[in-house]
Amino acid sequence: MKDYFKLNKLTSCKWINLFEVFYNRKDQPKRSWLMCSRKDRPITDAGVADAVVIIPTIKTQAGVRLVVTKEFRVPIWDYEYGFPAGLIDDGEDIAETIKRELKEETGLELVKIGHISKPVYSSAGLSDESCYMAMVEARGEISNQYQEPSEDIETILMDVNDIKALLESQSKVAAKAWGILYHYVKIGKIE
Amino acid sequence: MKDYFKLNKLTSCKWINLFEVFYNRKDQPKRSWLMCSRKDRPITDAGVADAVVIIPTIKTQAGVRLVVTKEFRVPIWDYEYGFPAGLIDDGEDIAETIKRELKEETGLELVKIGHISKPVYSSAGLSDESCYMAMVEARGEISNQYQEPSEDIETILMDVNDIKALLESQSKVAAKAWGILYHYVKIGKIE
Repeated sequence: MKDYFKLNKLTSCKWINLFEVFYNRKDQPKRSWLMCSRKDRPITDAGVADAVVIIPTIKTQAGVRLVVTKEFRVPIWDYEYGFPAGLIDDGEDIAETIKRELKEETGLELVKIGHISKPVYSSAGLSDESCYMAMVEARGEISNQYQEPSEDIETILMDVNDIKALLESQSKVAAKAWGILYHYVKIGKIE
Repeated sequence: MKDYFKLNKLTSCKWINLFEVFYNRKDQPKRSWLMCSRKDRPITDAGVADAVVIIPTIKTQAGVRLVVTKEFRVPIWDYEYGFPAGLIDDGEDIAETIKRELKEETGLELVKIGHISKPVYSSAGLSDESCYMAMVEARGEISNQYQEPSEDIETILMDVNDIKALLESQSKVAAKAWGILYHYVKIGKIE
C-alpha cells in the first residue's frame, strides 16, 4: 500500500491551529499524530519558510558586537533572549523581511546580508514551522519606536563575555539562537 | 493594574493542546495569544525542560565523527536531519534520558556527558516547549533495533565535509541542530 496521510483540523483559530494527522507508512499499522501549524493545510501547503531569524552584527567604536533581543513572549510568560525575527509576509522576499523586521524590532538599518541558511524546522515533532537563519550586518541607532504596541523588545549589543554570561545565567534563551551564541563564545565571531 | 493572564484550553487531546491566553501587561489594552503546549496548564506548570537534544560525537578508526539522525517526522512529512532527542519521562533525570534515548534511537552507548545547556525554547511565540542541549561522547555499534515501531530513524556518522554538504543540500535540517552544525563546519569540533 502506498504511504498516505489525511488531515483533520481540530480548531478554527486565526493564527495557529491544531491538527490530527491520520497516516500510514511502510505497510505499518495506521497511526495518528497531533501537530500545530500556521498553515490552513499543513504538509500539502508547501512553500517558503514561515519566518526569518536575523543574526545581526554591528560595528561600534568598541569593536564588533552581536545584536541580541530580549523579548517578552506570552507562551513562556517571560523575557526570552534571542535574535530579531519575524514572519515573512505574503509576497515579501527574504531580504525585504530582514530589512523590515530588523528596523521594526531594533530600529537598526540593514547594511548587508551574509550567509542565509536553507529553511530549518523549529520542532518537527510538534509543528511544521520553519525559518531561514540569516547573518547580516546592521548599523544605526537602537530604537523601540518602530515596534508594534503589543511588542516588548529590548535590543542589546553584546560582546563575547556578555554572551558567555548570558548562556551561564538563568535567563531564557531561544533554541534557534543557542547554537550560534555557543559558536560566538567559542570563536569570537559569527562568520 | 498588575499584569495577568488567563488560560482557555481550546482542545482536549492527549499529547498537545491549543490554548488561548487572555492577558494584560503594563496597563495596555487586553490582548489574546494562541499557543500550543504539551502541558495541561502551560505557564503555571513550571518545571524542568520537556526534552533533551543529544549532540553525540564518536571516536572511529577514521577519526572523530558527529552522530546525526535522519528521522521521518509526520508534521513535515519528510525526513529531517538533526540529533537524537527525546522527551524527559516523569521522574527521570537528564542523564537517564540521554542514556535511554541515545540507545533507543541510535543503538549507541553513552560514554560521558560534556556541556549541558540551560533550558532553551523551541519557538517561544508558538509554544512553551523547551529542551536541554547536551554534548556527549558515544561508543558502540549503530542499530535501529531499539526504536519504537512508529520511529523511522537512520543514524549517520558525519565528518566536517559531510555536514558542510548537508547544510548546502535541500535536505531538511532541525533548527535546534543548525547552529551547532554550522559551528562544527567552521571549527571542525564541537567543544
